[in-house]
Amino acid sequence: MVGRVDHVGIVVADLGEALALYRGLLGFPATDVMENRREAITMVFLRAGDSMIELIQPTSDDTGVARFLERRGPGMHHVCYEVDDILAEIGRLRDAGLKVLDDVPRRGLHGEKLAFVHPKSMLGVLVELYQAGSRERDLWIGGGA
Amino acid sequence: MVGRVDHVGIVVADLGEALALYRGLLGFPATDVMENRREAITMVFLRAGDSMIELIQPTSDDTGVARFLERRGPGMHHVCYEVDDILAEIGRLRDAGLKVLDDVPRRGLHGEKLAFVHPKSMLGVLVELYQAGSRERDLWIGGGA
Repeated sequence: MVGRVDHVGIVVADLGEALALYRGLLGFPATDVMENRREAITMVFLRAGDSMIELIQPTSDDTGVARFLERRGPGMHHVCYEVDDILAEIGRLRDAGLKVLDDVPRRGLHGEKLAFVHPKSMLGVLVELYQAGSRERDLWIGGGA
Repeated sequence: MVGRVDHVGIVVADLGEALALYRGLLGFPATDVMENRREAITMVFLRAGDSMIELIQPTSDDTGVARFLERRGPGMHHVCYEVDDILAEIGRLRDAGLKVLDDVPRRGLHGEKLAFVHPKSMLGVLVELYQAGSRERDLWIGGGA
C-alpha cells in the first residue's frame, strides 16, 4: 500500500529566486542545487519534517516540466509517496486500471526507484511512487540551511 | 521559521469517488467525512506518515475552492506547513512583503489556528500555515482505514 509523503514537487521558473524564498525567508534547510540532465531539470530538496519539498526548474523547452511551466505557470507539480514494494505497486495499480507510466521503476538521480502515475488516473494529481530506502546517497551531506 | 508539512490539500469534484481511490485502492487511513459550512466544503483527511492529505470538495459555487475546480479542474490546491508561532510568522512574512491573507489566525473546523499566504507571494503555490498543537480534537477518533 501507499504511505508517507516523501516529497511535494513544485515547479519554478527561477531556482535562485525560489531558494531566496524557501531557504532564505521561510528557513527550510536545503540541499545543494543538483542537475538531472536526463530529465532536463535542476532541482533542490528542502527538509520539511519527515517530508521534503522539491523545487524543480526545467533546463530545456521540450519536457513535460517545461510544458507544465509554460501552460500553467509555476506551482505544485506532483506528490511523491513512499511504498514498500514498488514493483508490486506498479502491478497492483495497473491491475486496478490506473495508468502507471513506468513498466519497471525508473532510477532517480540518487539511485531512487521511482514510478509515476498519470494525473488522469489520480483525479488530476501527478503521483510519484518512491521505493522506501532506495536512495543511495544521503541528500543532506553538504546541504546547509 | 516554517517546518513540517502538516498536509497537502487536493481539490476533488466528488469526495466519494476520491475516497474510493485514496482509501480503497491506495490504502490511506481516512477520517470521517467532515463538513465546514463556513468555508462551504466537505473534506476528509488521510494519514500519510507524519503528514496528511486533505481531500476537499466544494459545496457551493461561489467560493475560491469552487472557482479553482471550475477553472483548473481537480488537483493539488495548497500546502500547509506547521509553524511554532503563527502570529509571529504572519508579521514576519508581511514585513518581508508577502501577501498574508489573514491579519490574525482564522480558526479551522477543529480549532486550528491557520493563516494563508497568497500564491502570488509564493511562486504560484497557495500556502497555509498551521500553528503547531492548535488542533483541539484528534482527527483520527472514529476514522477507520
